[in-house]
Amino acid sequence: MEIAVDGERLVRELFALAATTDAEPVAGGTAVTRVVFSERDLEARGWLKRLAAEEAFSVREDTVGNIFIRMEGLEPGLAAVATGSHTDAIPHAGMYDGTVGVLGGLEAMRALKRSGLRLRRSVELVMFTSEEPTRFGIGCLGSRLMSGVLDPARADGLRDAERATLAEVRAGAGFAGELSSVRLREGHYRAWVELHIEQGPLLERDGVAIGVVTDIAAPAGYRFAIEGVGGHAGALLMPDRRDALCAAAEMILAVERCSLATGAIDTVATVGTCAVYPGAVNSVPSRVVLELDIRDTDPERRERVMHHVRSSNGEIAERRGVRIVEERVNADLPARSSEEIVAAIEEACVELGIGSRRMVSRAYHDSLFLARITPIAMVFIPCRGGVSHRPDEFARPEDIVRGTRVLAATLARLASR
Amino acid sequence: MEIAVDGERLVRELFALAATTDAEPVAGGTAVTRVVFSERDLEARGWLKRLAAEEAFSVREDTVGNIFIRMEGLEPGLAAVATGSHTDAIPHAGMYDGTVGVLGGLEAMRALKRSGLRLRRSVELVMFTSEEPTRFGIGCLGSRLMSGVLDPARADGLRDAERATLAEVRAGAGFAGELSSVRLREGHYRAWVELHIEQGPLLERDGVAIGVVTDIAAPAGYRFAIEGVGGHAGALLMPDRRDALCAAAEMILAVERCSLATGAIDTVATVGTCAVYPGAVNSVPSRVVLELDIRDTDPERRERVMHHVRSSNGEIAERRGVRIVEERVNADLPARSSEEIVAAIEEACVELGIGSRRMVSRAYHDSLFLARITPIAMVFIPCRGGVSHRPDEFARPEDIVRGTRVLAATLARLASR
Repeated sequence: MEIAVDGERLVRELFALAATTDAEPVAGGTAVTRVVFSERDLEARGWLKRLAAEEAFSVREDTVGNIFIRMEGLEPGLAAVATGSHTDAIPHAGMYDGTVGVLGGLEAMRALKRSGLRLRRSVELVMFTSEEPTRFGIGCLGSRLMSGVLDPARADGLRDAERATLAEVRAGAGFAGELSSVRLREGHYRAWVELHIEQGPLLERDGVAIGVVTDIAAPAGYRFAIEGVGGHAGALLMPDRRDALCAAAEMILAVERCSLATGAIDTVATVGTCAVYPGAVNSVPSRVVLELDIRDTDPERRERVMHHVRSSNGEIAERRGVRIVEERVNADLPARSSEEIVAAIEEACVELGIGSRRMVSRAYHDSLFLARITPIAMVFIPCRGGVSHRPDEFARPEDIVRGTRVLAATLARLASR
Repeated sequence: MEIAVDGERLVRELFALAATTDAEPVAGGTAVTRVVFSERDLEARGWLKRLAAEEAFSVREDTVGNIFIRMEGLEPGLAAVATGSHTDAIPHAGMYDGTVGVLGGLEAMRALKRSGLRLRRSVELVMFTSEEPTRFGIGCLGSRLMSGVLDPARADGLRDAERATLAEVRAGAGFAGELSSVRLREGHYRAWVELHIEQGPLLERDGVAIGVVTDIAAPAGYRFAIEGVGGHAGALLMPDRRDALCAAAEMILAVERCSLATGAIDTVATVGTCAVYPGAVNSVPSRVVLELDIRDTDPERRERVMHHVRSSNGEIAERRGVRIVEERVNADLPARSSEEIVAAIEEACVELGIGSRRMVSRAYHDSLFLARITPIAMVFIPCRGGVSHRPDEFARPEDIVRGTRVLAATLARLASR
């Protein structure tokens, strides 16, 4: 029985979603800014739920705003097979990260429905809240809470740049109630498969259509506050300075040096933000806050890099007479895919005559946390130049359609078992 | 004839002005944020004009918002003797920078009025618009325009962080009309004296009550845009990166190194702001903008430092594969005080039995630009620890009063000639 994906509609919907953005248009790409619980995010959610309603799929939302779109199977009491991703986007990002998994997942479900296949298990699509850490400083809020990795009280106390708590912001967006209810028990789902762009250059470079993810690298996030001594940029003499930004500059370079020093291609470390106080051209910086993102497939190697960064910070603080306060935002374990699901994806590829290769995901995804409560795997499709989180992020329509066909065929296999 | 300064009222007025602030109160000082043409700035202006009106001093405002408060002399046709400073304050600054010169100047005029001295020349107090560069990126807007150092069309096109032009912002604040009318001809004033806190540690350290400024160091401002290549913090591998923030970190350290290398105590260089784009923890920085403030009593030495900074930037850009665009915001000449006015200040100190010392100002002031059109000098008073541009900036009431007495006596001398 054929599972026919409507590729044209899928691409049209991806562009429709991309138009829901707070970013100014740019040349050479599609700029998307859609921060969790912003007006644009709420619009995108409403639109997704309307698409689900048109198919008569049932829709549920939990108290953190995760959306569950369900197509009932023949035996509704059995654990469902699930897919999904996110639709939020960091400032000035692209239009494919996350959205391909959500809209591709929806189209896969529609294709399964049209196919007339009579599946034993229900199929669910999940749209996760705040996969991106932009607003509350920690990524995968929805999937962390779902898998019990994040304490609900701590989550509700997280604050955005306007000092509003998640509790306040989600209530304002219409999601009241206890966060503890978001958690799902182990075994709630039979299987989880997420479709995503690779966000790396390998599939495109080697001309492989599908990546089957066997491992997800373990991310960690740190915040460093550097307290120096401010003063007038004209009158505070150079030998008397304890310039917080000069100390921060040394820290930024130490992070780069220590992560390069592992010699491992899977070690990546990034200082992505640098807030300077008071932040006036004629004032010596008294305080700087840096945010560090560090990832590795080997969490012990990641910890060794952090150890070197910490030693360097200690030396910088001592020499410059500044104070450096470290806060660990998150430090997660890597995830390993289920061999059964990896095999199901590979069988689907063979059946469809589509080439595939096993690979590691260096980016993290909600799947990293779903792995705590359900067997997982991921389907990657190529993206141009490996570029992501930028307006020129691009996946070819034919690659998106191929990935969606593989996803649909995989869900059909898993939901029949 | 005695010129009696009302010190109590002066200190009361300084505190009243400090209460007009956008900064949250802090422990251990008085935090003042009063950015040009903000609501607080407009309140402070209104209040100052009311104080002038209470004394029946005439009030004039020009098209950039400089305020002129005038006490008529016996021969109003003669060039006036002038004093003044600014009341705007950078974010989270203190309560004495600029304000001592404005309110001290006002009190000096009131004391002259009360004294019954019949002065030949009129005395004027000037409150300058935007001595601080916070909003439009360039300091001393009012005095630059007044002395013809800044092109009126360029000034009107300057933009704030919200992309509003000075033309729009000043019109919104009620200052319409051509900026070219702000310029005063050379000789418009007979003499200029500015009272100010030292913003350095020397007077306090050596127990000297009054500093007589003979030279003002020459400031320059630069903006550097670093264009790298962004990407996903997980997927963009370390060897493939062109991280704009890592390049910026090297530039910040090179600025520090090159300015220390002159070995001259009068060379100071500060990177005071660092804006990172896109500015997300999980995104490799694609673009960074740094603002540099560099000053020296010797403008040639300052240029040599910039030459070294530029060489270093070229090397960093080449090695890291980033693009560095330099924009010179301003590069001013130093100013030398008029020997006649310096002597008048010293004579006033002797007459009042107050100790003084000649010194250099490393901070710049509106006086730097007034020097282009009139003979100038400055009166410095001690401030605690040399601290300025911080909430714990502090000048003792007795020092403020002493400075105001010296200012009044100096104005009396100059206005009698």
